[in-house]
Amino acid sequence: MPQQTAPSSDAPRYVVGVDLGGTNIVVGVMPEDGSREIAMRSQPTRADLGADVVVDRICQMVEDAITIARAETGATREQFVGVGVGAPGPLDRGRGVVLIAPNLGWRDLPLRALIMDRVGLAATLDNDANCATLGEWWTGAARGARNVVGITIGTGIGGGLILDGRLYHGSSDMAGEIGHMTIDSNGRRCNCGNYGCLEAYASGPAIAERAREAINADEPSVLSSLVGGKLERITAQTVYEASEKGDPLAREVVRDTARFLGAGIANLLNTFNPDCVVIAGGVTQAGDALFEPLNAEVRRRAFRPVVEACRIVPGILPGSAGVVGAVATFLQQNQ
Amino acid sequence: MPQQTAPSSDAPRYVVGVDLGGTNIVVGVMPEDGSREIAMRSQPTRADLGADVVVDRICQMVEDAITIARAETGATREQFVGVGVGAPGPLDRGRGVVLIAPNLGWRDLPLRALIMDRVGLAATLDNDANCATLGEWWTGAARGARNVVGITIGTGIGGGLILDGRLYHGSSDMAGEIGHMTIDSNGRRCNCGNYGCLEAYASGPAIAERAREAINADEPSVLSSLVGGKLERITAQTVYEASEKGDPLAREVVRDTARFLGAGIANLLNTFNPDCVVIAGGVTQAGDALFEPLNAEVRRRAFRPVVEACRIVPGILPGSAGVVGAVATFLQQNQ
Repeated sequence: MPQQTAPSSDAPRYVVGVDLGGTNIVVGVMPEDGSREIAMRSQPTRADLGADVVVDRICQMVEDAITIARAETGATREQFVGVGVGAPGPLDRGRGVVLIAPNLGWRDLPLRALIMDRVGLAATLDNDANCATLGEWWTGAARGARNVVGITIGTGIGGGLILDGRLYHGSSDMAGEIGHMTIDSNGRRCNCGNYGCLEAYASGPAIAERAREAINADEPSVLSSLVGGKLERITAQTVYEASEKGDPLAREVVRDTARFLGAGIANLLNTFNPDCVVIAGGVTQAGDALFEPLNAEVRRRAFRPVVEACRIVPGILPGSAGVVGAVATFLQQNQ
Repeated sequence: MPQQTAPSSDAPRYVVGVDLGGTNIVVGVMPEDGSREIAMRSQPTRADLGADVVVDRICQMVEDAITIARAETGATREQFVGVGVGAPGPLDRGRGVVLIAPNLGWRDLPLRALIMDRVGLAATLDNDANCATLGEWWTGAARGARNVVGITIGTGIGGGLILDGRLYHGSSDMAGEIGHMTIDSNGRRCNCGNYGCLEAYASGPAIAERAREAINADEPSVLSSLVGGKLERITAQTVYEASEKGDPLAREVVRDTARFLGAGIANLLNTFNPDCVVIAGGVTQAGDALFEPLNAEVRRRAFRPVVEACRIVPGILPGSAGVVGAVATFLQQNQ
């Protein structure tokens, strides 16, 4: 495990981390002791330009990060031992292939080999939500925990599991699809085709949609004026802003979000009995307005000893958890 | 792991397994290679007579099992190396204490020490649902799997998790409380005080109750004649019987049970990505009438690669999984 890795010589080893998302690519460098983040940079993914262009951009960002990090640390190129990559979608970790990534329009792309060939370094590939969880565990909010559930809330809801100090991948690298947990078997339709998934209630777009529905039901709100009457412009972000301003409708939407998330998290507590749940993504901006009712719902639904064993915290590495975790996965797989 | 344990000498070692339930105590002996079950016996628990009497009975059954097994195998007393105990309720495994067992009326009972003192052998204590899962994995229906979810459906719904070939206990020995997963956040009230738990739909008593509700709603059924008009006598068992006879109401109740279980199991597939789910308990008597709609619901709700990675099977050790698993836990903890 990275936390327990001692430098193998006086010259510290460095690893490049890549966090590939549908909107942005983030790349940075860390020494193997995890003590700092170096040369952290973000660029738009521009998946519309095609896989070749995206892979080019990733490799260029890796080279740039190494150049900047060498200038900052005085390290030689040989001290850079590898690249950890976090990517969305079902993956074949063993072969380093992105099987399907709808947001990128990719299918069966051998991303690890492409990066290794171009950069000339060893590389590993893991799921982006797994990386974000491992990042928060290695140097962030879940530090010191043994069993961690990580939940990343954005356009979708992703999850990662650390059990007994290691990422748990499941039997076909698909573990942690927390967003598609049924919390209401006859409930709202989800993009996945099912009904009542957590994601259909608590993802960013679902939060915005529930707000629009409430406004269309003629409940008064400052939300419509915030978006100049164009309800389609409402996002989860505008809901948090209106909630902070005390708008009753927005506050109700945030409270409901907390209840849905609380039911999902209680399920995870009752089955995994983790010592830490770390929640990342825009939704954490809602602060206490979210976390207070969320904790109350978890206490209501999960067993007391399970609740007492667990802290539920917001992530503290919003811009870099994915990169930090990608570095950590590389180190866990190359000890 | 027991499967990989070779006998340490020519004289095989034997372990006694104890499965303590609210209704019955089952005790048996196995050699450390798991090749056979010896001297398997069951007696009523009679928890109403008090903890002392129950512990006496357990110890007497352990002694009897050793005597019978020695007569059958010619083994010496020294070849019996320990006792594995499976017991209900939240436990403190480290101290070997049953913290709370409502069905037994126990609180903070140091069961492991009591048995060790009386029998003069090393002992381990683990949760009964964990033991049942480990038993099906060691010599039963989940054999050969790496990641297993075990579900035991009786008066309640219990669960056990085997991840990467070992029992997963969670941060405070409470992992696997599958019965209290919310599948309908505004749904039926559960005995635990919450709403919409899987157990409130698919436990034995919940199945009987849903059948009674349908009859009270004036739906015709042979069920009422099966119990001589005394609806309170309907059990899950009578529902399965009526379903087998083709009674439409009972068949609908079984189909609904399958759908509820399917939603719960789909949640477990999407989060754990196991290669085997093994279902034990009376509900498996419903056979294909249960498993066909259950599989259909799982396919509808879980991701395809996750469904394809997993087989869902009934347990094949209905009388002895708990004992077999108790032996296996002893061996896993005493390698």
